[in-house]
Amino acid sequence: MLLDPDTSSCPDDRTGVSERGASQGVYAAGKETRRDILEVASSLFRERGLAGVTKPDIAKAAGVFPSQLGYYFGTKEALFVEAACRDVLHLAADVERAAAGTRTPRTYVRALVRTALSSPSLLFFAEAVLLVRTRPELAAGVRGAFGRLYDEGERAVAENLIRRGWHIRASAAAEARGFWAAVLGVCLEQAAFGASFSPASTEATVDLVLNLYESPAPPD
Amino acid sequence: MLLDPDTSSCPDDRTGVSERGASQGVYAAGKETRRDILEVASSLFRERGLAGVTKPDIAKAAGVFPSQLGYYFGTKEALFVEAACRDVLHLAADVERAAAGTRTPRTYVRALVRTALSSPSLLFFAEAVLLVRTRPELAAGVRGAFGRLYDEGERAVAENLIRRGWHIRASAAAEARGFWAAVLGVCLEQAAFGASFSPASTEATVDLVLNLYESPAPPD
Repeated sequence: MLLDPDTSSCPDDRTGVSERGASQGVYAAGKETRRDILEVASSLFRERGLAGVTKPDIAKAAGVFPSQLGYYFGTKEALFVEAACRDVLHLAADVERAAAGTRTPRTYVRALVRTALSSPSLLFFAEAVLLVRTRPELAAGVRGAFGRLYDEGERAVAENLIRRGWHIRASAAAEARGFWAAVLGVCLEQAAFGASFSPASTEATVDLVLNLYESPAPPD
Repeated sequence: MLLDPDTSSCPDDRTGVSERGASQGVYAAGKETRRDILEVASSLFRERGLAGVTKPDIAKAAGVFPSQLGYYFGTKEALFVEAACRDVLHLAADVERAAAGTRTPRTYVRALVRTALSSPSLLFFAEAVLLVRTRPELAAGVRGAFGRLYDEGERAVAENLIRRGWHIRASAAAEARGFWAAVLGVCLEQAAFGASFSPASTEATVDLVLNLYESPAPPD
């Protein structure tokens, strides 16, 4: 059975449902409910943070019973971490798409950095990372998300280098890890400064990542 | 009056105490008490996070009355933010000292990155950054700390370039900002992975920052 990787920890998946007909319909409906809850919860958590959202808030907004949240996700914290990890992986896909149409190393890196930093998903993920320090039973989800960010990033960088004939000084793996580290750090600064955030930090990150690219960037 | 910059938000400072003799003695004692509380609180917060520490815990460990915490700092959250900002600025000084004796760009950058990542102060500061999102009245302290990290970092990079005759591709300001962004991001990953943290991320950060240095690093 092919699963959406974003929902691989769905309880329904673990029951190994294999009968056709009715139970498959129930399974599909359950998967859809689960995804709906994740989307609604993400939106609320991004806006108000963990402390600002209750289980009844999420249940009401998703049109489900509070008991269904417990059935699908367990605690509010577990739902928070799963939603944050799913969000940051969607962001990774958006980042890759945004950079696809660019033509120079500078516009490529700038598209990566700006797409990442314009999303609330990075900070949501950072909050999940800090949360699992005191909830070690939830850490596996965060570690898995980091692993996928790196693996997908490395693949995207390597594909891109081949397709465009660019060269970098470090490995594709180092480039991907360094990129995510840098944008996670800048998103913290962005959070502290809010509307008065200085674009100089974004530019510094662009410079830092861009300088891995060997050919001097032509003006764009 | 010369103030310790780390304690510039001390209530005593704001009263503009200028008389000599008795009030100066009271002022000095108050300043010392305040610093003692900050040190004890930092140690507790680094170990257990904001939620794991109460005002009475801090008062007991510092040997003061709980009411003194309120007098010097206001809320627990205000104390948390001030302690975290003070901690990260001390870390910046440690980072600069650790790199002072190195001789190649690679050992220099590695000393910067490793010193930063081996300290619990980065994560403590990251938690303060996330906290001020919902406590905007405390954001000024965090913004001030970012500003000083960048200014001091820029000065250190510029001094270092002149002294060693090294060249970098980006500006000293971009290098300093990029460095702090990258190590803040990596410290989040480190928090998620704990003991199983992969040194590859540290190396990726070193590569990212090191690649700003123009002369190819000799093997060390």
